[in-house]
Amino acid sequence: MIPYDLIRKKQQGRAHTPEEIRFLVDAFTGGNLPDYQLAAWLMAVYFQGMTIDERHGLVEAMIGSGQRLDFSHLDGYVADKHSTGGVGDKVSLVLGPLVAACGVYVPMLSGRGLGHTGGTLDKLDAIPGFRTGLGLDTFQRLVAEVGICIMGQTDDICPADKQMYALRDVTATVGSIPLICGSIMSKKIAEGIRGLVLDVKWGSGAFMASLDEARTLARALRETGEAFNVDTMIRITDMNQPLGRAAGIWCEVQEAVEVLEGGGPDDLAALSKTLSVDILRLAGIDHPDQAVEEALSSGRAREKFDEMVAAQGGDVKALTDAVMHRPAVTIPLKAPRSGCLQAVDTYACGLSLITAGAGRRRQDDGLDPSGGFILEVKIGDEVQAGEEIGRCFGADRGKVEAAAGELAATLSWGEEKVEPPRLVVE
Amino acid sequence: MIPYDLIRKKQQGRAHTPEEIRFLVDAFTGGNLPDYQLAAWLMAVYFQGMTIDERHGLVEAMIGSGQRLDFSHLDGYVADKHSTGGVGDKVSLVLGPLVAACGVYVPMLSGRGLGHTGGTLDKLDAIPGFRTGLGLDTFQRLVAEVGICIMGQTDDICPADKQMYALRDVTATVGSIPLICGSIMSKKIAEGIRGLVLDVKWGSGAFMASLDEARTLARALRETGEAFNVDTMIRITDMNQPLGRAAGIWCEVQEAVEVLEGGGPDDLAALSKTLSVDILRLAGIDHPDQAVEEALSSGRAREKFDEMVAAQGGDVKALTDAVMHRPAVTIPLKAPRSGCLQAVDTYACGLSLITAGAGRRRQDDGLDPSGGFILEVKIGDEVQAGEEIGRCFGADRGKVEAAAGELAATLSWGEEKVEPPRLVVE
Repeated sequence: MIPYDLIRKKQQGRAHTPEEIRFLVDAFTGGNLPDYQLAAWLMAVYFQGMTIDERHGLVEAMIGSGQRLDFSHLDGYVADKHSTGGVGDKVSLVLGPLVAACGVYVPMLSGRGLGHTGGTLDKLDAIPGFRTGLGLDTFQRLVAEVGICIMGQTDDICPADKQMYALRDVTATVGSIPLICGSIMSKKIAEGIRGLVLDVKWGSGAFMASLDEARTLARALRETGEAFNVDTMIRITDMNQPLGRAAGIWCEVQEAVEVLEGGGPDDLAALSKTLSVDILRLAGIDHPDQAVEEALSSGRAREKFDEMVAAQGGDVKALTDAVMHRPAVTIPLKAPRSGCLQAVDTYACGLSLITAGAGRRRQDDGLDPSGGFILEVKIGDEVQAGEEIGRCFGADRGKVEAAAGELAATLSWGEEKVEPPRLVVE
Repeated sequence: MIPYDLIRKKQQGRAHTPEEIRFLVDAFTGGNLPDYQLAAWLMAVYFQGMTIDERHGLVEAMIGSGQRLDFSHLDGYVADKHSTGGVGDKVSLVLGPLVAACGVYVPMLSGRGLGHTGGTLDKLDAIPGFRTGLGLDTFQRLVAEVGICIMGQTDDICPADKQMYALRDVTATVGSIPLICGSIMSKKIAEGIRGLVLDVKWGSGAFMASLDEARTLARALRETGEAFNVDTMIRITDMNQPLGRAAGIWCEVQEAVEVLEGGGPDDLAALSKTLSVDILRLAGIDHPDQAVEEALSSGRAREKFDEMVAAQGGDVKALTDAVMHRPAVTIPLKAPRSGCLQAVDTYACGLSLITAGAGRRRQDDGLDPSGGFILEVKIGDEVQAGEEIGRCFGADRGKVEAAAGELAATLSWGEEKVEPPRLVVE
């Protein structure tokens, strides 16, 4: 096969064979296809798309570039959740221990935050001693022993995706649905799971700005999951405002723990439960709603979280230590006028976290674990001028002040009463 | 300016400023823009196109990457011709000396053959001693002294185009009209010419397969020429069959000399005269038709060719030496049936030259100067079964036999009488 001919084929809108896609992925991963040729091909894919069969060929090739885990020896259902990302989304920290407490095994390979989105690993890294860089052997052992392990991608799982993503990131080809689908599904399927719940976010803080785009991605993800015999459940959920009240690093860990203790913000608790019930339903567990409620009210979900933290070397006492990552600077956020919150520029909320020091512009940026914000208002809420509606915090006064200004500017106020957006759309 | 943002801008179909295009070209040429980012941008240009202003920015930036010649000190009009390429097109070899004999200065920077198309330099290189790799000083001196010099691109003229073309060539982005326009016009304008005749080929052996595409390219070329104050004349001409009878290396030199001596195939002679008259008209020469006829019939055009050959170190006697590059093997081509020639796959004719050894698959392939074919029939001609309609020749029997088979397969025969295609469409 000649790379030029394959670029030309995709450029003309013709479909590749699985062999052609495997050839491209393998040649690139093996250093036998120059990155300028893959870059041209990726841009052609951006414009011409991919058929179902091509997407499956891509997923197959990416899985084949590394190791595929096997948990078939375990005595229970093995499942995971993936979210397409947003601001304040700490559902993984709740859902993982919660479904593990209900008997589902959760091998969760997570990512770090970049740009406006946060990442589960950054939050776990803020727990003193917690190790997110384990070997695959340890990962598999902890999944079997504890029921859950959350760690970072390793070079053994889908190395092709890592290399391709690095190229997509600098060639403006990240936002292509078949490539997004390939990237998500190859990594999840390689985890050796039987069930997968996908939380596709739509809205001002999501990669899919419109509901239509979110539905197109959801369809692609579902088709791919089914083709690889993974029980796949898709939810399309709201990211037109931050999820929960807290966004940042340590404040998100604290909020996740609140939900595990039966409290926390309504939206975060509701979404965490919905997605957990979905997983239990895939697992064939009877009365999944009751099981979830019982795991929370009994304290077993909260205990499972501690168990996971301890198993991964983390200091469990830190979770209840009031001075842990206490921000040096806190600036209150006040309502600039009386009225109703009409809309939130959630993407800009995420960027304000970078300003505060709690987000990354580039992959090698450092993070301030004490940084973040609390936003007490939701779309549709009515406030009085001057009322405190939240706060920004972190280690550096200048950064926090700038972030507070940016955050305030993300909120649109008006006279008119607006309906709150639906949290779980479908 | 951030390269990522510029890729994204073009991907979304928004127009660049001239500064943005200059930034991309300069950064790439200076080694400050990785080729994978330019490759992604080129593919985005392929899909989204460019506005007039963007095209002019591209031409300006490419010219600015090198030297721009100046012939304003000369006492006459300075002009050149460019063809988009095809099979059997040896018009430059005729037109250059012909218009130079009429007093027009011709600084002609030419190219080599690649794929199905031939190149003027390869033909001149077949003249023993002829040097096509002169310095720009010698080039300018010979243009002034002889009236014409034909040589290869140098690194001093539009180096950005050379680098970008090398990348386009391996990323399937050669066939983009704004990029074709930028590549052609930057090099021609940098020659320091006042007038330019462009021969845009359309048909089965041209880069523009349809008349519509050819017209689109022609429009882009004309607009750019006008924007840079170059008198620009465009012809759209037929490439649905080889031009003239001969295609290859030395056989094309011989056929060009035949036309300069007042003979040669009708189509080649007619097109050479039409384009020469166009240049003389741009130059403001009175009665350009008569001037062309007179330069041919008087022998002055033929003498100018010898003068050019001698000035560039070539052996003039070789042109009349009957054994020069005489092919070791000649295989006659016979009509497989009685009937009318309906169509020619001219692209495949060009590829058969590669098989014969007289064309290049890759830039570093060697050439057999004795290789080529003569095709005596034109679309619309009627033949009897078994009648000799041409011949294939070259140094290697196996190659020539294979080429003859390929060439025969390019010809479509039928009962029906068809009209010959119009040579000069507009």
